[in-house]
Amino acid sequence: MTSVTAFAPATVSNVACGFDVLGFALDEPGDEVTATFGPAGVTIAAIEGDGGRLPRDAAKNTAGVAALALLTRLGDPRGVSLTIRKGLPLSSGLGGSAASAAAAVVAVSALLGANVSKDTLVQCALEGERLGAGSSHADNIAPCICGGFVLVRSTNPTDIITLPVPAGLTAVVIHPDLEIETAMARALLGNTVSLHDAVQQWANLGAFVHALHTSDFGLLSRSLTDTIAEPRRAPLVPGLALIKRAAADAGALGSSLSGSGPSLFALCRGDETAARVAAAMTTAVKTHIGGEPQVYISRISGQGARVVSTCAS
Amino acid sequence: MTSVTAFAPATVSNVACGFDVLGFALDEPGDEVTATFGPAGVTIAAIEGDGGRLPRDAAKNTAGVAALALLTRLGDPRGVSLTIRKGLPLSSGLGGSAASAAAAVVAVSALLGANVSKDTLVQCALEGERLGAGSSHADNIAPCICGGFVLVRSTNPTDIITLPVPAGLTAVVIHPDLEIETAMARALLGNTVSLHDAVQQWANLGAFVHALHTSDFGLLSRSLTDTIAEPRRAPLVPGLALIKRAAADAGALGSSLSGSGPSLFALCRGDETAARVAAAMTTAVKTHIGGEPQVYISRISGQGARVVSTCAS
Repeated sequence: MTSVTAFAPATVSNVACGFDVLGFALDEPGDEVTATFGPAGVTIAAIEGDGGRLPRDAAKNTAGVAALALLTRLGDPRGVSLTIRKGLPLSSGLGGSAASAAAAVVAVSALLGANVSKDTLVQCALEGERLGAGSSHADNIAPCICGGFVLVRSTNPTDIITLPVPAGLTAVVIHPDLEIETAMARALLGNTVSLHDAVQQWANLGAFVHALHTSDFGLLSRSLTDTIAEPRRAPLVPGLALIKRAAADAGALGSSLSGSGPSLFALCRGDETAARVAAAMTTAVKTHIGGEPQVYISRISGQGARVVSTCAS
Repeated sequence: MTSVTAFAPATVSNVACGFDVLGFALDEPGDEVTATFGPAGVTIAAIEGDGGRLPRDAAKNTAGVAALALLTRLGDPRGVSLTIRKGLPLSSGLGGSAASAAAAVVAVSALLGANVSKDTLVQCALEGERLGAGSSHADNIAPCICGGFVLVRSTNPTDIITLPVPAGLTAVVIHPDLEIETAMARALLGNTVSLHDAVQQWANLGAFVHALHTSDFGLLSRSLTDTIAEPRRAPLVPGLALIKRAAADAGALGSSLSGSGPSLFALCRGDETAARVAAAMTTAVKTHIGGEPQVYISRISGQGARVVSTCAS
């Protein structure tokens, strides 16, 4: 039986100053999806690593919906069956829905032998993500598919910009023993923001893009501030200000919630600083939240979702 | 008698996607200020080109307030007398207040033989501009002092970023026979914006900064959109949508209000396109607003406010 397995990485979205439009990919962890031919449409053969919590009905599963969107887009009458291995914790803010959807479309595209553009992969994966997030921002999906540091100017039509990554830029991501539902975190935001806060946000995002282009770590640090989402979501993460302070004291350029949390990211210059920051954040998370957090240190991955194995028989 | 004359250029602020934070300088027109020593404090010796409409009381004049802020900052007990020659029309949206304030601080700084940083010049000129605009955004002052395409990440503390300018980028600026008071245009904005509009604005600003760095004129064009100020201020300029359409049809990359209007700017690739766009916008302005508009075609000036003559006696 022919099968294709794709891996899609964890992603950090929002990135403090880029709510709904900015994200980057990690080297790992990530989700894997194996696609084989199956009955018409899309079926979910199995899901591993979710503790039985994700829907097995393809129409209610982000990977299933994304795969079906691709089949429909291609007009391909064949059916596919998906096996999903969750490497990412659920509701963690690490782009788990995006990773499953991205791995699914990449695996299915390869299984079908279709030549699908990244824009189309993003559009199809977005249809899956819409299930989870309730809106079609692509700041997880786009870096998950494309890799790197990505700015999403528009999803309709797709306008995705891959930004340069300064040498030595390293991410620390920490996942506390907490769950936050994306939809609930989004409801906290409301529909309006003050003009003053909005102006500060776009000043910071513009400066951040300039800092990536010029490897200006000082400016990058000054720009890593969120006037929009983090202040409203802070109550969801106990001790957030103190955890951020610990990261800064250990030398982080900046830190904030990853996506809608509860995971936090910090950006650092160099691996040694990143190791110190990871240790400091771990201590702070244990103190203020408790439990046993998961910690990842990763360069910004230049690779997005990709086929990792193909079996023909 | 020793005298120093400084010139400060017209500036386009907001630039569609950068409300309150983005601006650029033109080669001309601009204002000139001549500074000489005089009675303690600051006096306005004369103003030319304003039709008698600007205050002669230095405490109520943007150039006077800016010069006094500089004297105070330097702790210099000497007094200065200013002669202001307005090359910029009043209430035009071309940064006239900023130009007078910038020329004043540059002239006074040179007259005093003081070595003043650009940040300090910006801060002092901002005190003058606050008189006119009622708020301390620096998207006219900063490009007026520094030249070029400028992003103001913060005014407190000053964090001004000079952006790269792609070769061939040319501005068309047209000043219709209309006056709009800055304070009134600002009141139209209100204090809140929808989160959706704000997200689109910062996506565009981030993309615009990337486009300047990569000379990507297509992306620059797609990013030159204002979801915040232009929709609310459109009623102040009759036929705005049709004038913008004329600019686009003639090949402009994009167009919008210059500052709070009534002037409009368009960005173009190359002088020939700029000439066509200028002609098309002129025709459209005459049709929809009437009167005799003033039109300028200029590269983005790399030079900001500067001393143009010094007389010693």
